[in-house]
Amino acid sequence: MTKNNSIAILLLSCPDRKGLVSEFSYFVFSNGGNITDLDEHVDIEEKVFFIRIAWDMKEFKIPSDKLNDAFTPLANKFNADWKINFSHVKPNLAIFVSKYDHCLQEVLWRHQIGEFKADISVVISNHPELETLANHYNIPFHYFPITKDNKAEQEQSEIQLLRELEIDAIVLARYMQILSNEFVAEFPNRIINIHHSFLPAFIGGNPYKQAYERGVKIIGATSHFVSEKLDEGPIIAQDIIHISHKDSTKDLVRKGRDLERLVLAKAIHYYLEHRVLVSGGKTIIFT
Amino acid sequence: MTKNNSIAILLLSCPDRKGLVSEFSYFVFSNGGNITDLDEHVDIEEKVFFIRIAWDMKEFKIPSDKLNDAFTPLANKFNADWKINFSHVKPNLAIFVSKYDHCLQEVLWRHQIGEFKADISVVISNHPELETLANHYNIPFHYFPITKDNKAEQEQSEIQLLRELEIDAIVLARYMQILSNEFVAEFPNRIINIHHSFLPAFIGGNPYKQAYERGVKIIGATSHFVSEKLDEGPIIAQDIIHISHKDSTKDLVRKGRDLERLVLAKAIHYYLEHRVLVSGGKTIIFT
Amino acid sequence: MTKNNSIAILLLSCPDRKGLVSEFSYFVFSNGGNITDLDEHVDIEEKVFFIRIAWDMKEFKIPSDKLNDAFTPLANKFNADWKINFSHVKPNLAIFVSKYDHCLQEVLWRHQIGEFKADISVVISNHPELETLANHYNIPFHYFPITKDNKAEQEQSEIQLLRELEIDAIVLARYMQILSNEFVAEFPNRIINIHHSFLPAFIGGNPYKQAYERGVKIIGATSHFVSEKLDEGPIIAQDIIHISHKDSTKDLVRKGRDLERLVLAKAIHYYLEHRVLVSGGKTIIFT
Amino acid sequence: MTKNNSIAILLLSCPDRKGLVSEFSYFVFSNGGNITDLDEHVDIEEKVFFIRIAWDMKEFKIPSDKLNDAFTPLANKFNADWKINFSHVKPNLAIFVSKYDHCLQEVLWRHQIGEFKADISVVISNHPELETLANHYNIPFHYFPITKDNKAEQEQSEIQLLRELEIDAIVLARYMQILSNEFVAEFPNRIINIHHSFLPAFIGGNPYKQAYERGVKIIGATSHFVSEKLDEGPIIAQDIIHISHKDSTKDLVRKGRDLERLVLAKAIHYYLEHRVLVSGGKTIIFT
Repeated sequence: MTKNNSIAILLLSCPDRKGLVSEFSYFVFSNGGNITDLDEHVDIEEKVFFIRIAWDMKEFKIPSDKLNDAFTPLANKFNADWKINFSHVKPNLAIFVSKYDHCLQEVLWRHQIGEFKADISVVISNHPELETLANHYNIPFHYFPITKDNKAEQEQSEIQLLRELEIDAIVLARYMQILSNEFVAEFPNRIINIHHSFLPAFIGGNPYKQAYERGVKIIGATSHFVSEKLDEGPIIAQDIIHISHKDSTKDLVRKGRDLERLVLAKAIHYYLEHRVLVSGGKTIIFT
Repeated sequence: MTKNNSIAILLLSCPDRKGLVSEFSYFVFSNGGNITDLDEHVDIEEKVFFIRIAWDMKEFKIPSDKLNDAFTPLANKFNADWKINFSHVKPNLAIFVSKYDHCLQEVLWRHQIGEFKADISVVISNHPELETLANHYNIPFHYFPITKDNKAEQEQSEIQLLRELEIDAIVLARYMQILSNEFVAEFPNRIINIHHSFLPAFIGGNPYKQAYERGVKIIGATSHFVSEKLDEGPIIAQDIIHISHKDSTKDLVRKGRDLERLVLAKAIHYYLEHRVLVSGGKTIIFT
Repeated sequence: MTKNNSIAILLLSCPDRKGLVSEFSYFVFSNGGNITDLDEHVDIEEKVFFIRIAWDMKEFKIPSDKLNDAFTPLANKFNADWKINFSHVKPNLAIFVSKYDHCLQEVLWRHQIGEFKADISVVISNHPELETLANHYNIPFHYFPITKDNKAEQEQSEIQLLRELEIDAIVLARYMQILSNEFVAEFPNRIINIHHSFLPAFIGGNPYKQAYERGVKIIGATSHFVSEKLDEGPIIAQDIIHISHKDSTKDLVRKGRDLERLVLAKAIHYYLEHRVLVSGGKTIIFT
Repeated sequence: MTKNNSIAILLLSCPDRKGLVSEFSYFVFSNGGNITDLDEHVDIEEKVFFIRIAWDMKEFKIPSDKLNDAFTPLANKFNADWKINFSHVKPNLAIFVSKYDHCLQEVLWRHQIGEFKADISVVISNHPELETLANHYNIPFHYFPITKDNKAEQEQSEIQLLRELEIDAIVLARYMQILSNEFVAEFPNRIINIHHSFLPAFIGGNPYKQAYERGVKIIGATSHFVSEKLDEGPIIAQDIIHISHKDSTKDLVRKGRDLERLVLAKAIHYYLEHRVLVSGGKTIIFT
């Protein structure tokens, strides 16, 4: 994809007031852009306006490298948080894993068949086992063993690598280490985790065992951005399946794998299509 | 609800071209309207643009009774099909039933508790049995027995009654008569039916029996606008539930009732909130 | 239904050992019974055996009023907890409500059309509003206003009434009072509640508000037996629906009503068909 | 798994009569077997009895290689169709594919991580593209190009290969050729297909295009045994997802892939656990 047939995607939030849709759509129109998709949302209680506009750059008068400058005055007028992405610029991902392969397998396979418009520059793991899988998909693999003693140091090495690789976002594909607040602060709302329960139920370790012991009739999976508080970050996607008394903890693990794969993939898909905004600990997903 | 705190809702479709969102949103903004909800869709293949805009009339400069005239020039410029509805004007419904009570019960109960922003002016039936139920909810009931010989005549009487009552839309709440093409033509895309299968599977009579005999593992329900061809009108809402070999036809009927009620209610809800556009035998549902 | 074409339904649990299915099915067969349905489950970890056997009483040699005596020796041999119910004996229900009508409406309507094989002897409420609805379905209504001061006393009056009416089980159809442990102890695993969240998430009051604030992408409903600990009793049925950032708390309440109605109805259905066993704080549901 | 800790699994159907559960469970018990799972079903209309019994062979007095002989008299007494499988004997599968890789990838990955208790002896394709994928999982790949002229001949070669490999069942993982009736007759109720629609809707080619054009709000996938009539064999598993007007045919293909993978995997899982019986063009699935 060249710049000429690229799509520009604006994600923006600002205090709500009259005329915002008109102003932003007029900016696109008056510069020759053809809006291909527009969705907006107003949080009535918080009085915040959110919008996603996608437009064709083909006959747009402002070149993509001048667009930020050109849009800044309008954004400032409304005191907006905003970002413009382009479909010809692929986000650059790092995948973190431990020993379970199902989420990594799913992400790399979808990437390979072209479902994910992203570069995957590295797989990082605290265990060596999944190097073969990463290699099969031609993705570099870095092994950072983590102990209680070396954790802070290893995280610094990881951050340095991620910076060198110019990573935009991190996917935790069943990464079994808790990231430090320092690490999380480096990638605010840019670390996507998959938790194997319908949060906020069964926070923390071994949610399938917790689910089995509670005797629930559904199990779930939740993909969310990582925040400082464990399993309390903004939720991007959730789904569940029905289970019964016949399902052992082992069955839940097996059935849950399918959920985890699909829910994580859905969250990544939303993220890569620039459909996710975060506000007040929650997400707006423009579907 | 008075006119002053009313919401105006524009539903519009027209040939796609650049600048449409900007033009329509500017119309609202420049006249003092505050857009509370905007959603649009472009059918790339057919090159048709669809939009739904909802705005607050409170400080809008054009009074609601002058709005059609004021909007016409802009609509004509883009060769648009359009309609503006107001939240202070409730659509006026007629419900058609036969002997099964579950859909009628559901519709009248939801209406009673205020879920449906509509007037229900009449329940019409080809059987007398459900008069008591209609009366319980204080809705007039008209009995039009239908035989092969009197069908055309009775339909004319029904149409006359519906005209007198100024009915906007008809809900077929498991009405077991096939409406003539003449009748359907009186209410294009304004008759909402519930069919007890996941269309296009199991068209026609006894879909639960058909489902049982085919041995499917899911059954469904479909709410659609009635068109001239049986069960082939534009689909508004569908849902399914899982079944097993243990379910007899009778079980399917029982389980299906819940589906029928909810799917029909969902379709009515979309319709009453002016979220449905029809194009090329399909619906656009602005959710 | 007369005794002659009745179905006997055995629900039994006992320590697991070899030959249990054979022994219990032989008891039925050797006495002339035709098994119409048999399902069993073994909790491997706890080494407990569960079985449900339904058989036709038509040619069964033991009359229904002698069956308990006849079965006791075999049950004792395996140290079993058990109960035999008959399809010609309808369980006798009391429904508790407060002000929300949707669950009461659903239960009474399903009862009226014959879905629930039960007698409903009384509707009890701490508010007077739903008397009209109970009357519409010809069910006696008792109003027991509850204050902090009179709660213990009123519960005693309720218990006395329930005893007089020979109530088998209680359905809490959105009853907004917490029952005392004394009350619950009178009806162990015989009080069916509907909680408007996917437990164990959002225990306690206002779960829809909690869900809205957490920003979940699904909401749920849970029907469970009431135990001494609030919202921690054995779960009978659960389901969820998907929501989005567009849904206000009010939307969640509206969408949740449909879930609550269906999940509660499902739990009651299982209970009335004698498909529910409780063990270790969890349920076995023989579907 | 050795023979000693094997599980025997009886699948049986016969004309319904009294005492069948008792007779078959007594056979197991009296020979020292411990029943770990028993499920039965009676087709009331057709008066046919179906049962699945699983028992532990550890202390069973009849060795596995004598079991068929030992059971035959009892089976003959009730004129039964039956088969006894053992958990230590893995079914031997062949996978047929064309160019789409998602179903093959899913099946081979699940096999690799141990979800499928089966041997996969060969991948057969009418195209060469997926050899690399088969090789990655160390499964032999055979390429049988099919033209109008060589089809009958190539099918004979395939049958010969399948016989040599002693294949028990065939999985069509999006195999885009229609098998001849002669081929199908070789593997009655032992060819598992995945069709990318909720059958019986959208039989035949291009179901996603058909779905798009009809404007349905759900799409589905169906796994079924292949019979002589196209897409009309006994259904094993079905599921659906919700779609909207925003989804192009391409989106349906993408979203449908996830459905196809999961529904096919579910059907294979049931088959490999010997949970599927076929009768009258329908399946009984003992879950």
